[in-house]
Amino acid sequence: MSKFDEEVAVTRTGEGRYRGHVDPHWNIGDNPNGGYLVSIALAAMADAVDHPDPVSVTAHYLRPGSPGEVADIRVDIIRAGRSLSSVRATLAQQGKSRIEVLAAFSDLSQPAGVDANMTVAPPDLPPPEECIERDGRTQGVELPIASRLDVRLHPDLAEPGNAESPVMSGWIRFRDDRGPDTRSLVLFCDTFPPSPLGVLGQIGWVPTLELTVHCRRRPAPGWIKAQLRTDDLHEGRMIETGALWDSEGKLVAQCRQLGLVVRSD
Amino acid sequence: MSKFDEEVAVTRTGEGRYRGHVDPHWNIGDNPNGGYLVSIALAAMADAVDHPDPVSVTAHYLRPGSPGEVADIRVDIIRAGRSLSSVRATLAQQGKSRIEVLAAFSDLSQPAGVDANMTVAPPDLPPPEECIERDGRTQGVELPIASRLDVRLHPDLAEPGNAESPVMSGWIRFRDDRGPDTRSLVLFCDTFPPSPLGVLGQIGWVPTLELTVHCRRRPAPGWIKAQLRTDDLHEGRMIETGALWDSEGKLVAQCRQLGLVVRSD
Repeated sequence: MSKFDEEVAVTRTGEGRYRGHVDPHWNIGDNPNGGYLVSIALAAMADAVDHPDPVSVTAHYLRPGSPGEVADIRVDIIRAGRSLSSVRATLAQQGKSRIEVLAAFSDLSQPAGVDANMTVAPPDLPPPEECIERDGRTQGVELPIASRLDVRLHPDLAEPGNAESPVMSGWIRFRDDRGPDTRSLVLFCDTFPPSPLGVLGQIGWVPTLELTVHCRRRPAPGWIKAQLRTDDLHEGRMIETGALWDSEGKLVAQCRQLGLVVRSD
Repeated sequence: MSKFDEEVAVTRTGEGRYRGHVDPHWNIGDNPNGGYLVSIALAAMADAVDHPDPVSVTAHYLRPGSPGEVADIRVDIIRAGRSLSSVRATLAQQGKSRIEVLAAFSDLSQPAGVDANMTVAPPDLPPPEECIERDGRTQGVELPIASRLDVRLHPDLAEPGNAESPVMSGWIRFRDDRGPDTRSLVLFCDTFPPSPLGVLGQIGWVPTLELTVHCRRRPAPGWIKAQLRTDDLHEGRMIETGALWDSEGKLVAQCRQLGLVVRSD
């Protein structure tokens, strides 16, 4: 079993109740990556619904997670439809809610309407071998998560402050070569360095308040290409919009987050 | 009092319990506009929290609303922080959930971080007088909502099937000249004709499954300019991304929805 599947696994402990464990290998600095916490909640939600693909996932980050501790997930099915399941989950540790998730699951192997097609082409990017492996130095923090995810950044963007526009782009895959699926795309949307720092330099930290991911297609095996951009930053509140493409160049996920850009001093 | 404020008003009936009424004047065809239902839920949520501005609102549309009927809203505060309140709500009619909302409220008059600025400039658009008032004919439905909202569409886009790209743009304000505020921006994000029909023509209907709105700045008085675009449409599942600007050209809201494009025959 891959590290990801092992470390997001949950056990059903009752009606709509699950228990998991927050593994410290997914930390960024002292805190678990937010997308990893969402992945634990999604594992519980996926167990509770009949559809496999999270087509819409909104997570509100309430408090940092506690690495090395048990996580209790409460799942409520809001509506179980023929083609769509709507579900919410609260992940708590030590009695305190850490994230709240509202999601819709469907089956992306089944058409849902007209066969017209529109899409977003992937950006040009040097191949993974010519990109720079993400390390903690660029963000001034330890990155235990680098033991789980192989993240390669565009060579022009790997140093904060060098970018001409607030864009972050690169490649991502699991370190142990587990293939991507729709649930892992949600994680991948939340594991690149924040796009405003490319322009602003290493001025502080960028906590996510809310993240919404839409999974669009089941990804082909191989590297996932990512591009994220700061649309709007005003009085410290930021909107970052991004997209992921698979190794065949198909758009597989879109994402947007509300975050803060806070000076670290 | 404006029609909007009157027709989204709720009464507190208990701890986290509110009652409102779904007015038929906000219908599109036989069903209440989704953004109007969300506005009723937001009225209850705003009463329950200490912060005035909905900075992140995600609504899942579970079932159509019932016009002319009572609405019961249950509000749960997830976390009441100093600068942010996280809250969820379920709006039900006749015992059945119609929408589920997860939101964060904050105070946009208070800075939240660094004073760096990035933003998205408004698109060029003919003035409201040169745009085409939205009527039901373009969508083949009755539009009672036109008695409440004055929506003007870009002259090139007012006829389905005439657009070169899947973009919808125009202007919006309340019919009775109530000024815009952050809560009304959430409504405005969900009241333009669907952007894919500009290219595809009048092929069917476009039910929203999930809508996320981020309010970015408190709007100045006057018309609100809107632009919405279909990013991706695949096997009937669509992502439409949009933005609103106020009369001073400032970005006031960003939005994205997951919808279906379904043939009406």
